[in-house]
Amino acid sequence: MSTSSFAKLPFASDYMESAHPSVLAALAQTAGQPMSGYGTDHMSEEARELIRHACDAPQAEVHFLSGGTQANATMIDVLLAPYQGVVAADTGHVASHEAGAIEAGGHKVLTLPARDGKISAAQIEGLATQYLKDENRDHMVMPGLVYLSQPTELGTIYTLEELEDISHAAHAHGMHVYVDGARLAYALASTQDNASLADIARLADAFYIGGTKCGALFGEAVVVPQAGLVPHLFTLIKQHGALLAKGWAIGAQFGALLRDDLYLRIGEGANQQAARIAQALAERGFLAATPQTNQVFAILPNETYRALSERVDLSFWERPDEAHTMVRIATSWATRDEDVDALVALLRA
Amino acid sequence: MSTSSFAKLPFASDYMESAHPSVLAALAQTAGQPMSGYGTDHMSEEARELIRHACDAPQAEVHFLSGGTQANATMIDVLLAPYQGVVAADTGHVASHEAGAIEAGGHKVLTLPARDGKISAAQIEGLATQYLKDENRDHMVMPGLVYLSQPTELGTIYTLEELEDISHAAHAHGMHVYVDGARLAYALASTQDNASLADIARLADAFYIGGTKCGALFGEAVVVPQAGLVPHLFTLIKQHGALLAKGWAIGAQFGALLRDDLYLRIGEGANQQAARIAQALAERGFLAATPQTNQVFAILPNETYRALSERVDLSFWERPDEAHTMVRIATSWATRDEDVDALVALLRA
Amino acid sequence: MSTSSFAKLPFASDYMESAHPSVLAALAQTAGQPMSGYGTDHMSEEARELIRHACDAPQAEVHFLSGGTQANATMIDVLLAPYQGVVAADTGHVASHEAGAIEAGGHKVLTLPARDGKISAAQIEGLATQYLKDENRDHMVMPGLVYLSQPTELGTIYTLEELEDISHAAHAHGMHVYVDGARLAYALASTQDNASLADIARLADAFYIGGTKCGALFGEAVVVPQAGLVPHLFTLIKQHGALLAKGWAIGAQFGALLRDDLYLRIGEGANQQAARIAQALAERGFLAATPQTNQVFAILPNETYRALSERVDLSFWERPDEAHTMVRIATSWATRDEDVDALVALLRA
Amino acid sequence: MSTSSFAKLPFASDYMESAHPSVLAALAQTAGQPMSGYGTDHMSEEARELIRHACDAPQAEVHFLSGGTQANATMIDVLLAPYQGVVAADTGHVASHEAGAIEAGGHKVLTLPARDGKISAAQIEGLATQYLKDENRDHMVMPGLVYLSQPTELGTIYTLEELEDISHAAHAHGMHVYVDGARLAYALASTQDNASLADIARLADAFYIGGTKCGALFGEAVVVPQAGLVPHLFTLIKQHGALLAKGWAIGAQFGALLRDDLYLRIGEGANQQAARIAQALAERGFLAATPQTNQVFAILPNETYRALSERVDLSFWERPDEAHTMVRIATSWATRDEDVDALVALLRA
Repeated sequence: MSTSSFAKLPFASDYMESAHPSVLAALAQTAGQPMSGYGTDHMSEEARELIRHACDAPQAEVHFLSGGTQANATMIDVLLAPYQGVVAADTGHVASHEAGAIEAGGHKVLTLPARDGKISAAQIEGLATQYLKDENRDHMVMPGLVYLSQPTELGTIYTLEELEDISHAAHAHGMHVYVDGARLAYALASTQDNASLADIARLADAFYIGGTKCGALFGEAVVVPQAGLVPHLFTLIKQHGALLAKGWAIGAQFGALLRDDLYLRIGEGANQQAARIAQALAERGFLAATPQTNQVFAILPNETYRALSERVDLSFWERPDEAHTMVRIATSWATRDEDVDALVALLRA
Repeated sequence: MSTSSFAKLPFASDYMESAHPSVLAALAQTAGQPMSGYGTDHMSEEARELIRHACDAPQAEVHFLSGGTQANATMIDVLLAPYQGVVAADTGHVASHEAGAIEAGGHKVLTLPARDGKISAAQIEGLATQYLKDENRDHMVMPGLVYLSQPTELGTIYTLEELEDISHAAHAHGMHVYVDGARLAYALASTQDNASLADIARLADAFYIGGTKCGALFGEAVVVPQAGLVPHLFTLIKQHGALLAKGWAIGAQFGALLRDDLYLRIGEGANQQAARIAQALAERGFLAATPQTNQVFAILPNETYRALSERVDLSFWERPDEAHTMVRIATSWATRDEDVDALVALLRA
Repeated sequence: MSTSSFAKLPFASDYMESAHPSVLAALAQTAGQPMSGYGTDHMSEEARELIRHACDAPQAEVHFLSGGTQANATMIDVLLAPYQGVVAADTGHVASHEAGAIEAGGHKVLTLPARDGKISAAQIEGLATQYLKDENRDHMVMPGLVYLSQPTELGTIYTLEELEDISHAAHAHGMHVYVDGARLAYALASTQDNASLADIARLADAFYIGGTKCGALFGEAVVVPQAGLVPHLFTLIKQHGALLAKGWAIGAQFGALLRDDLYLRIGEGANQQAARIAQALAERGFLAATPQTNQVFAILPNETYRALSERVDLSFWERPDEAHTMVRIATSWATRDEDVDALVALLRA
Repeated sequence: MSTSSFAKLPFASDYMESAHPSVLAALAQTAGQPMSGYGTDHMSEEARELIRHACDAPQAEVHFLSGGTQANATMIDVLLAPYQGVVAADTGHVASHEAGAIEAGGHKVLTLPARDGKISAAQIEGLATQYLKDENRDHMVMPGLVYLSQPTELGTIYTLEELEDISHAAHAHGMHVYVDGARLAYALASTQDNASLADIARLADAFYIGGTKCGALFGEAVVVPQAGLVPHLFTLIKQHGALLAKGWAIGAQFGALLRDDLYLRIGEGANQQAARIAQALAERGFLAATPQTNQVFAILPNETYRALSERVDLSFWERPDEAHTMVRIATSWATRDEDVDALVALLRA
């Protein structure tokens, strides 16, 4: 974990500041009235209605969970039969950075080599076919669920067409589709994507709308478009330690995020700041790829990296060769214009 | 789950209102500054220091988890070897109301018959001896951890002497001791108890200081007095889906609760309101037992129960005989004087 | 575990001698011919056909597993949904002597107080009703499967009527029925029982025909009368470590056991020997209860117990009072007439 | 699973015939005497002593388990802490063909790309270093155990020097070493290997001596050279459903296998038959690699493959290009001279 000083310009990640003012205000407004527990309160119900509306999924089941690992581990576990595993990009969060939570739930992660952080319908089709044709398949883990992150861990997005194809391929082979939307706001606001919340609700069997990295203090909204797909999901969430007594602690936040398109606006703002930074990096020839969301990847000469690191809090990514360092610069709802100005000035200096 | 209308007097439980004003203020004050993730921020660290001080355990490891089931399931799992089970009162929360979370982690709950919600050192001693003397013990689950709730699910408390005895008996037989402090504020403030936080930290191998039911919006503070007792606990917490990216979301709340003895004052206030209600119940001959904390149990004639239920939100407990109903009345930091006055008036009417 | 010398008369249990001569002969006859693996060989298939015929269940799925704990742990796990638990007598094997194997699979054992080792349809009905009526049921483990042992751990048997009632009650509440037949031969041969293999196959959703304690060298035959009830059961058996590469190692044994009613004759022989011993015990007033199968329980004056123990290998059961000791005497297919004669003589002496 | 007719020459695998005559004889000799249960009998103890002697590990703990998946799943589970995963070749059995048994036990398989079925000390060193240097390691699965198969799934063997290096690298990074010896007889008898049982016992923390594929009817002997390394291993074996009541059913077999070097002789015989087949394949230019143990891999023109398949039972492996098919030909203790003669004649025809 980084121990960076915050006197530096803050571009390490998108969960380094508390919560959007509207979210904090909504939390403050929970005071002074008794409410019923475990998500049955009116604030949670209002948030659920807003989500159902935004997803164009009036029958959807919506549950509020505390964090991303919890949402992923719980939903992947309940969507899989015990003889099935989850298909994911080898760069996918569940494949590498969940501390074994998926396996602790009893399931194998079947990895596919990612390209730009993404996997394709053809790869899924290929894996399913290979499994079916293998004479030893009864001794193997059956692919049962496709895990996607939108945007991916590299900030790229699946286009609507890609999502359509993946959903089609997965369902044709009896697999569910699950979308990890930890940073979904930034994908929804991407100028390059045309998959809306309603598209995702139509194409995925379950997904979550990320709060923690998109302006909430904490919390993720798990959406199951076809209510009842997972019997006794409430109890299963409790069993996974993921049920809050005071459901409104997350419900109120999602109410604020979903009202007046705040969620989309948060995404747009961060993406625009990322684009500004990318422009400055491109001018210097440092930009690794045009950012599609709020994460900008740059390849810096080591000397530039060292100098920049003294003034900017950014994430070391990898060392592509002896002389260069790849870094990630992330923006968020909390990114200040003046901090971007300062970073751009540093880059141009 | 209750679907009670809140036009009624609110005595259903202690997690029916948002959070103590100081807690909400602390959350509001997290705004506007970058902080480091996963509990490494200064607010969380300050809260940990306050807890270590209150526990007189300067070396203690403190982790902030989202809720009680999560804290119980995670800590019981990591404290037990795979061949061990957890010893609990048959009325204990982990024995009945965790939706199987303990077993989902692979462990058996070994129940002992409770008396007033409590188990005794003699029972633990007896269970350990019975296990050791059983020729088939290698085919059985070894008792490896004693689970206590302080106060218990019936609102009773273990006295310091009882805790000393239980801790001694458990440790003498190689068992750990874990205390579920979901409602710990009310126990610490009990006039009948003399076990302090420092006592608990001295006698238990792990415990949690309850937030959700004691004035926080959500969150529990897990304390392991001997840091390092559970290797890689941080990773294990992550694996159990219990690690918040924005640790300060709980840290800030516990900072507020621990400052200026707020936690104790919350307990005292609720206990005093409970005592007032108990007094009124006793006058009518309805009181089941003198309350030791914030939960009052009453046995009402069915007719009284029905009449009261129309005006008061209380919890049905059981039906001791054809003509009577046992109910629970719970107070909290949020209980208003006027609501207690109104309840007392109703009881005297 | 007993470390008894076998110079003593051998009545400790029913798995203390190798295997019935016909079983050993069948194993010897597996030599000299290639066979296909994982139970697809012709010997296994022949045994399955014999079992299907004996069960009057021509569509039944039959799998050969190595031992009882494995059969119980595997089948209970695959028959339960993750939010369900298994209902068992508190004296049931899965409740006490499986070293936590059920919980290691993630499931709670919901115990009911046994009477003569048995539970009743009324108890199951009561548990299901209590669950349904509990407002907190969504926070609890749902009863999903009834576990019975036939005969029970105390050697008693469920009558056909009792099995009919239990099956009816369980199914009426959406629960499966699973019968642990570790000692099934002795139950089938009981003069007091009228439940046949076909009855069990009709009333249970899954069960196993015990080999290890009924004349086999090892192995149990799991029967699922409705093939396909558990999707991908073959893979799940493999996942539980319970699939033998050389399936005929068990298949050949069950072929021998099922041919010419050997299985029944093994049961009858052992039950008759048990009856002779019971008669001698009754003459002295030592018999605890008339044995229904191959296990005889006796209450001996401590002095008699000590004297007998020097000559006879029997199982200590419990100490009902200061002056007496309860013991179990078990017969099997391997019990010799002369050993029973000697035991009877000792008892009469 | 293959449904091959056994009128063909039997070279599909090494577990297609019952058991070596000495093993069947040993099983027959278990008759007629009472023995104590759960592996405490004298036959099992004698086999354990023979194994300890052969391993030059007088203090070793030895347990007899039913099959390979069971041995792997049990031992990997008990050797790993819950936050650790097992390192294996991507071609390793636990990575692909255990039906998810490792993950069902809660652990991730961390795969390394294999070369000739093997992984190297340098790869293990690299993985450990990469983990240690990763700032996010607390969010990742720690490598805790190295899984090797000797011989590998491709029939290759680790040389003594390679085993020394791997053991050193693993232990230097706090990892255990576990060797899957499903086909260990063939590795021990390899002319190219110089790692003895004693070497393996010295270099590995646990391993199993394979029975099923090396002449036994079923069963594997798990060896833990340092007794007590895994506390309560007996109970854990029971919990994993892997404890036989009649331990001698496996113990007697291993007694036979270990006496008079039968195990080694079984390996030698099979390896020599494999060498004869390889010679004939080489003459035709079909040999893929010189066999190191009992598995011979050949690349056949598709036409040759089709023709051969009609007369020989062999295993399809993969299709390296449009015109060729790779197959595996396996010998065993049961391979008959005349069948090899016939195969050689077919190849030369």
